Amino acid sequence: MTVTDEYLDNNRVYAAQFSGPLPLPPSRHVAVVACMDARLDVYRILGLRDGEAHVIRNAGGVITDDEIRSLAISQRLLGTTEIILIHHTDCGMLTFTDDDFKRGIQDELGVKPSWSAEAFPDLHEDVEQSLARIEKSPFVTKTTSLRGFIFDVATGKLEEVAA
Amino acid sequence: MTVTDEYLDNNRVYAAQFSGPLPLPPSRHVAVVACMDARLDVYRILGLRDGEAHVIRNAGGVITDDEIRSLAISQRLLGTTEIILIHHTDCGMLTFTDDDFKRGIQDELGVKPSWSAEAFPDLHEDVEQSLARIEKSPFVTKTTSLRGFIFDVATGKLEEVAA
Repeated sequence: MTVTDEYLDNNRVYAAQFSGPLPLPPSRHVAVVACMDARLDVYRILGLRDGEAHVIRNAGGVITDDEIRSLAISQRLLGTTEIILIHHTDCGMLTFTDDDFKRGIQDELGVKPSWSAEAFPDLHEDVEQSLARIEKSPFVTKTTSLRGFIFDVATGKLEEVAA
Repeated sequence: MTVTDEYLDNNRVYAAQFSGPLPLPPSRHVAVVACMDARLDVYRILGLRDGEAHVIRNAGGVITDDEIRSLAISQRLLGTTEIILIHHTDCGMLTFTDDDFKRGIQDELGVKPSWSAEAFPDLHEDVEQSLARIEKSPFVTKTTSLRGFIFDVATGKLEEVAA
């Protein structure tokens, strides 16, 4: 039995008390971009209820073409206007460098990725960088509020990073 | 007052009853890739508890270079081995085409994205396509379980898609 099987059992319990469906467009017109870290239960951290906000997540909560794609679809087709960016303390992205990570892959697997790993040495600076990538994107143009935060995995609190 | 401000108020309530910190590596060695849809509270749908699994999300739950980047970091640096992929019924990605979306951007903003929008006409086929992109990636090599599902936004149930 895999962990996946256990989670499918959990889903049967969830479905038994499920009340749906809700409409497709996010009712509060918000898109959240956050790190994939296992300790970030974004719905609980922000008090999101079902149907309120898009949630986009990846390693680091960084902004690459795929987050721009998701934000462009979120804003242009589904009407979101506010963006909340969340990085966090004790992030794995602080523990390595792109060069070392890609060299390790090349040495082990024989192929070097053409993409950046997007590791970063400074949390505040990378929140600012991610905000800047959104601000400078020619495709994310409907934003009325754009704010970046660091989630403290020791306290559960969000600290705002001035852009 | 923005919705973001409301969510920050919610975070104060969350932090007041928070007990942390947990370790960085996901304790159940699972990575989930899911659509950003506002109705997919992934932690509740699968019964994930804090610290158990990475959660990667984007428009459609599709696999692009950025999801491969996140999965490679998840497996190689943080020890995950199982992957759960989740698309869902009533997805926005079924409602447009890449060509129309990019033409709309070009006509309005004067710049055509160099990236694909990743719209898809068939849900089952796109789950299979996303699974195939993971299977064929030279960088995601530690997988012991890879399974794809469609979440039904009307019932809360996960339906497995045979790869």
